Amino acid sequence: MTGPGWTEGSAPARRRGPELERAILDAALEQLVSVGWNALTMEAVAAGARTGKAALYRRWSSKADLVAEVLRQGLPGLGEVPDRGSIREDLYRLCVRMCDVMRSRAGVALRAVLHECDPVHADLFREVIWKGLHEPAHEVIRELVLRGIERGDVRPDATSPLIIDVIPAMLMYRAKVCGSEWPDREIAEMIDGLMVPMLRP
Amino acid sequence: MTGPGWTEGSAPARRRGPELERAILDAALEQLVSVGWNALTMEAVAAGARTGKAALYRRWSSKADLVAEVLRQGLPGLGEVPDRGSIREDLYRLCVRMCDVMRSRAGVALRAVLHECDPVHADLFREVIWKGLHEPAHEVIRELVLRGIERGDVRPDATSPLIIDVIPAMLMYRAKVCGSEWPDREIAEMIDGLMVPMLRP
Repeated sequence: MTGPGWTEGSAPARRRGPELERAILDAALEQLVSVGWNALTMEAVAAGARTGKAALYRRWSSKADLVAEVLRQGLPGLGEVPDRGSIREDLYRLCVRMCDVMRSRAGVALRAVLHECDPVHADLFREVIWKGLHEPAHEVIRELVLRGIERGDVRPDATSPLIIDVIPAMLMYRAKVCGSEWPDREIAEMIDGLMVPMLRP
Repeated sequence: MTGPGWTEGSAPARRRGPELERAILDAALEQLVSVGWNALTMEAVAAGARTGKAALYRRWSSKADLVAEVLRQGLPGLGEVPDRGSIREDLYRLCVRMCDVMRSRAGVALRAVLHECDPVHADLFREVIWKGLHEPAHEVIRELVLRGIERGDVRPDATSPLIIDVIPAMLMYRAKVCGSEWPDREIAEMIDGLMVPMLRP
């Protein structure tokens, strides 16, 4: 136990703080994507990160806490939506981006959690999902609508907060209830058939 | 066991067929509304219907089968939507009716099931809910939009199937994600702020 002997063989160099935390979160995301929420164990995550369970429990008191952190850190942001000159193009790009997020590894993990976990945990994850997914989407959509009002291709009274909800509501409804994968063609149909008529002056 | 002795005291007269089935379904709905999906037992339903468990299992092989039948029979239909002269009034009346259905005893039972049951059962109930809730709503909305096109207060190209989904999608999204109770005022805001602009010629 003294000297450099403990790093022999395949054992990794000792990692600390952020580096070890990163490895644990990566391993947990990997587990979520491959086996889902129910089958995920702290043991398997520890093994994946080449550390011990104690290192996990020092940071997160439960599997739910760990997974919440994975989702918080893993969900990619929506980024800036550059002005492409029309509300049609702006909303289309944003929707494609939102669907990409849901198809990302963290998006797949999120859906596994939502689909599998029991109601008690679903309540725990609600805030994580609201802050990581819905709130950022609402903010960007609001911004795009305001940009359209300034530009003049959105009617000035398109200010109901309900308008902001249409795109996330449609993405969720057709994914959950109709099982739609939202191909780009269907996104374009939503923008042209719903959003543009709803918003035009 | 011979003679009329077995109907003595509080024991009910022997019921058969449809009458007994009705009593069982009523007792199961009562249980769902009061204790939810997880806590519902075949014993308690049998007791509520003043019969034995065997009478239940002769008709439904499991709690899930029984509850599916309760939802199938219990969800009130949307009925006819009389022509009130404008797409605005027609859609408003329909949405109020849809929200009433979700607040009915069967609607409360449905939400208990969706909220509590595990993913395996959720898959089983998906078809029941699609046929009992979403499909009828889609049919009525499609009819109202066509009526509006004929009347002239809906644009003739409002034929994208996605248009039919907006109202159910919004009702579901704001109930689930935002926890909205959909007061009538908010329904009116959805019709005036979203649907009428989206559909007008």
